[in-house]
Amino acid sequence: MKLKVYADRMSQPSRAILIFCKVNGIEIEEIHIELSKPINPLKKVPAIVDGRFKLFESHAILIYIASAFPGVANHWYPADASRKAKIHSVLDWHHLNLRRGTAGYVLNTVLAPLLGLPLNAQAAAEAEKVLVSSLSTIENIWLKGDGPFLLGSFRPSIADLSLVCEIMQLQLLDEKDHDRIIGPYKKVQQWIESTKNATKPHFDEVHNVLYKLKARLSAQQSSKADGQIKAGIKAPIFSKM
Amino acid sequence: MKLKVYADRMSQPSRAILIFCKVNGIEIEEIHIELSKPINPLKKVPAIVDGRFKLFESHAILIYIASAFPGVANHWYPADASRKAKIHSVLDWHHLNLRRGTAGYVLNTVLAPLLGLPLNAQAAAEAEKVLVSSLSTIENIWLKGDGPFLLGSFRPSIADLSLVCEIMQLQLLDEKDHDRIIGPYKKVQQWIESTKNATKPHFDEVHNVLYKLKARLSAQQSSKADGQIKAGIKAPIFSKM
Repeated sequence: MKLKVYADRMSQPSRAILIFCKVNGIEIEEIHIELSKPINPLKKVPAIVDGRFKLFESHAILIYIASAFPGVANHWYPADASRKAKIHSVLDWHHLNLRRGTAGYVLNTVLAPLLGLPLNAQAAAEAEKVLVSSLSTIENIWLKGDGPFLLGSFRPSIADLSLVCEIMQLQLLDEKDHDRIIGPYKKVQQWIESTKNATKPHFDEVHNVLYKLKARLSAQQSSKADGQIKAGIKAPIFSKM
Repeated sequence: MKLKVYADRMSQPSRAILIFCKVNGIEIEEIHIELSKPINPLKKVPAIVDGRFKLFESHAILIYIASAFPGVANHWYPADASRKAKIHSVLDWHHLNLRRGTAGYVLNTVLAPLLGLPLNAQAAAEAEKVLVSSLSTIENIWLKGDGPFLLGSFRPSIADLSLVCEIMQLQLLDEKDHDRIIGPYKKVQQWIESTKNATKPHFDEVHNVLYKLKARLSAQQSSKADGQIKAGIKAPIFSKM
């Protein structure tokens, strides 16, 4: 029986699991669950069902698949206790730092109106602080080793995949805002590219839904900008603003 | 060389690690680090140093010690991949649920003034929602099995210890507030007692610093209440309020 993966590709942890399975040749049945229609008792995706075994929480799922399925290369989740521990440490850190910052910032600058929620400038400002501090930690601590991946590794681990899928959510930002936030972090940018390359073509295929939403948001924004210019022509008073 | 544990017993994850080592007879050198004087690159306690190996993030530390040190009974972190996965799932869930709710609520109702910060009623209200929903999840999902511990187990795991140490932070609340919040959750209360019993006498010994602060806060509160009564006698206008 195939591993069932309940996922919404708009959710970054769902994408991490889908990419991981595809890269490692694990056959899955992907069951699309919109975030607004949850299936598991804690009302979250992603979740997996392996025979009679059910599991959720993306990090726990990545570790389980890496441990229980044959054919997953050791670099994804090394057998060595110390290297494993360092990966756990990054994954734990992720929750209250990179995830909190990214999710809070994207929600309060872009996604809220699409979900029928008000934009909250104060929450966005607080989330931005957490996000910037998290990017700085990745740049200066997690990526300070020799290799292009976290913890100085030369091959990616489940932590690289999980964190890069999180950061990809920033694609939804207005381009100027995106560049302002991520621009200063050169190693982070190289690391995203290295992770994409190490998992292609699955990385882009699974992110396609995000790229499409991004294109739709950009189109909306430029038509809004056009509208403002036209309004400016019609009502010259605005040109003074 | 003894395992070095950098800890502040006022921090719930520090306590979980100290109790775990003591219960399992692991000799440690405890190095007291006040939260305001951090030692590791991400400015957090707890952290451990095992020979040349450094690690932080309490869940990663508990897993590492349970895996790398001989003599830790299997129930704390079972070898079986499925049981391990369920424990990881609870630990991951902890971060953005029980921890966020408990830490946010205690900070914004009790601790903020001690740290020179203002109390924030809105943040307290938001944290209370997360806290109550987390307690309800523990009561109705994680504790719905046969045994007295999480996931229906008959012996505690590192997840029980980590979550119970978190909930103990609620001891710092005003008694009425504590009872209002935790009162409805009978299984949660029994589970706290079971975890205390399974780890005594270390549990209370390590929590002693918390109990002492609790006593100090209660004394302050009752002298404040006395003060208000006296002020009421002096200035009867307040009796109309």
